Amino acid sequence: MRYHWVGLLTDYGLRDGFVAACHGVLARLAPSVRVIDITHDVPAQDVRHGAAVLAQTVPYLPPAVIVGVVDPGVGTARRGIAIETGDSVLVGPDNGLLSWAADALGGARRVVSLDSARFHLPGRARTFDGRDVFTPVAAHVAEGVDLDELGPPVSDAGWLPAPAVGVSDGRLTAEVLTVDHFGNVQLAARGSDLAAARLGGPLVTIGAAGQVADVIVGATFADVAPGQPICYVDSADHVALAVNRGRADDVLAVRPGDQVVIARP
Amino acid sequence: MRYHWVGLLTDYGLRDGFVAACHGVLARLAPSVRVIDITHDVPAQDVRHGAAVLAQTVPYLPPAVIVGVVDPGVGTARRGIAIETGDSVLVGPDNGLLSWAADALGGARRVVSLDSARFHLPGRARTFDGRDVFTPVAAHVAEGVDLDELGPPVSDAGWLPAPAVGVSDGRLTAEVLTVDHFGNVQLAARGSDLAAARLGGPLVTIGAAGQVADVIVGATFADVAPGQPICYVDSADHVALAVNRGRADDVLAVRPGDQVVIARP
Amino acid sequence: MRYHWVGLLTDYGLRDGFVAACHGVLARLAPSVRVIDITHDVPAQDVRHGAAVLAQTVPYLPPAVIVGVVDPGVGTARRGIAIETGDSVLVGPDNGLLSWAADALGGARRVVSLDSARFHLPGRARTFDGRDVFTPVAAHVAEGVDLDELGPPVSDAGWLPAPAVGVSDGRLTAEVLTVDHFGNVQLAARGSDLAAARLGGPLVTIGAAGQVADVIVGATFADVAPGQPICYVDSADHVALAVNRGRADDVLAVRPGDQVVIARP
Repeated sequence: MRYHWVGLLTDYGLRDGFVAACHGVLARLAPSVRVIDITHDVPAQDVRHGAAVLAQTVPYLPPAVIVGVVDPGVGTARRGIAIETGDSVLVGPDNGLLSWAADALGGARRVVSLDSARFHLPGRARTFDGRDVFTPVAAHVAEGVDLDELGPPVSDAGWLPAPAVGVSDGRLTAEVLTVDHFGNVQLAARGSDLAAARLGGPLVTIGAAGQVADVIVGATFADVAPGQPICYVDSADHVALAVNRGRADDVLAVRPGDQVVIARP
Repeated sequence: MRYHWVGLLTDYGLRDGFVAACHGVLARLAPSVRVIDITHDVPAQDVRHGAAVLAQTVPYLPPAVIVGVVDPGVGTARRGIAIETGDSVLVGPDNGLLSWAADALGGARRVVSLDSARFHLPGRARTFDGRDVFTPVAAHVAEGVDLDELGPPVSDAGWLPAPAVGVSDGRLTAEVLTVDHFGNVQLAARGSDLAAARLGGPLVTIGAAGQVADVIVGATFADVAPGQPICYVDSADHVALAVNRGRADDVLAVRPGDQVVIARP
Repeated sequence: MRYHWVGLLTDYGLRDGFVAACHGVLARLAPSVRVIDITHDVPAQDVRHGAAVLAQTVPYLPPAVIVGVVDPGVGTARRGIAIETGDSVLVGPDNGLLSWAADALGGARRVVSLDSARFHLPGRARTFDGRDVFTPVAAHVAEGVDLDELGPPVSDAGWLPAPAVGVSDGRLTAEVLTVDHFGNVQLAARGSDLAAARLGGPLVTIGAAGQVADVIVGATFADVAPGQPICYVDSADHVALAVNRGRADDVLAVRPGDQVVIARP
């Protein structure tokens, strides 16, 4: 099996040469592979945010070896792993970062530990596994190396718990999963949860600090007047809160990790 | 007609997976196409800024299908369009975003409405036409689909009005079109306007709030001492104001949309 | 000699279309070449920072034509140069930006001045040599143009002085070379300097303003408790200071250019 594409998600930012060094390693080891940069602006060491972005993006990628690096435990005994899932392979630290993406692609069929140093860069540093372990492993997998060659099978890979979602008639309770570039507030709840709670029309949201806002259920931002909040099912099938031509995170005063209640008034 | 290149300009930012999802859609539908990211940091929903950056960049791109997405009206009845212009095709919302780029490439030869859903992603969301409409349409056009297949011709596409520029002997009045990464202030006026106003040597600029600055006409930043302002014709043939090794937007206290006067003292 | 890869490092940022114009020029002149963006977020006009990032990244790139543009002197009589070094060619302004990268690749074998206008864009602007000179020259070099065709040899190219490092028994004095995205503080000193100073175990660091901190020598961030500082040899073989799950630049209150002392207590 060969892969034509490699995806990269990190918290390295783009100011330094870290991402380019990973691109360079790929270009040297797998010169015909093409790279899709998923994002390199995951908040530093925020594994949960990285896992959410990765899970929502991988369904739109072509078959690929997808490297994720948000890795506060770099240099410690935490394992590196590769996960075979869907028509892709995920590579990164065994800290849960890859787990929701594997779920989104249909679940892990095979997980191995990246023990075999012959697929790492020689002279491996202790603080840059993205360059020295995960990217070279991805290049080798793209070039046809089977997962069994990378290291022994793993049966206890770390999986992030799914965020809690509470559904009852007329009431939905969910964690804020992400806030995007536009300030749209994405909840852990799915479109089916909104339907199960039989929520529609005028609602109230209650934020973590008890703040209350009137919001209506709609399909797109412009279903409400500029400056007004709306509850909708977003493009990743999550329940979300937005403000037409504004920032919902500011207007509703909520942040990732907050619990939000959406209810009939 | 096939295209080897796709250009992308959006206001999505690079923190989320939105741009990568578009890259993934392109990779799946038109795997041999290569992508040039024009920018994804257009200020959120600022159609006018996006139009200016697009118009100044497209002349340097190879023949391409160029997708622009700055789209406050996503999900509403606003049309999507494709414009045949120069040796390229522009794809995006019908809100004026593409209009100045079409002008820069020699004018629109053909405009169609993106009505044919068979070139969109199945399961189209209501809030992410970049992923679900514009990028897949661009992939199909790059692969050889003719514009006539995309939808019916359009004769009333939205065109942004050209910003007002006033020229008289010794005096130039123009809107601030953009402020770039370095703080250089680009006016809507062209190099030919500066010549027509017979402006050269020592001048004054008068900002929107009445603030006055001494400025000389030169060719490059280092024609004035560090910290001093200069008026020059920039690399996109616009009249611009810069401060050698400084930020003109701060020193001159002007912002996009402000009216600026440049005159003989 | 042909090159399949071009590397790009600039201080242009990604908000405007400047980087995309460079990509477009490459796509037109050398369509089969692939581009690795090293970074475009070098602090504006900070030649020294750009030189450091470039030098630490180029060893991981494939053989390439590598363009660097941090160029406060654009439009003046400062030369453009191309440097043959290692298995690559460096192209950019003759202001020292390329010098440390040439050292990192084994030293300059040949340097030429970019005098021959037939390898520049016609209608060259005075303020955008990245688009009009350096990128087109790089495209031509990638396509097989020999350096001798670009212009006459240069024997006095500008070289940035190496930052001072002082080593004595139990004491290391060095300049802060860079601070990365995570706040890790990279010193000009090398791993061999730390060994030569016979430093290990508990140490103190003394910052530019006289501030003192306790720090231990370790191999990776997690060798100290969260919030604690550590001194280690980083992935570019520089002595560095980090704070486990925190920002060393804030905790230690040091900035690029500061002198730092690391010593036995």
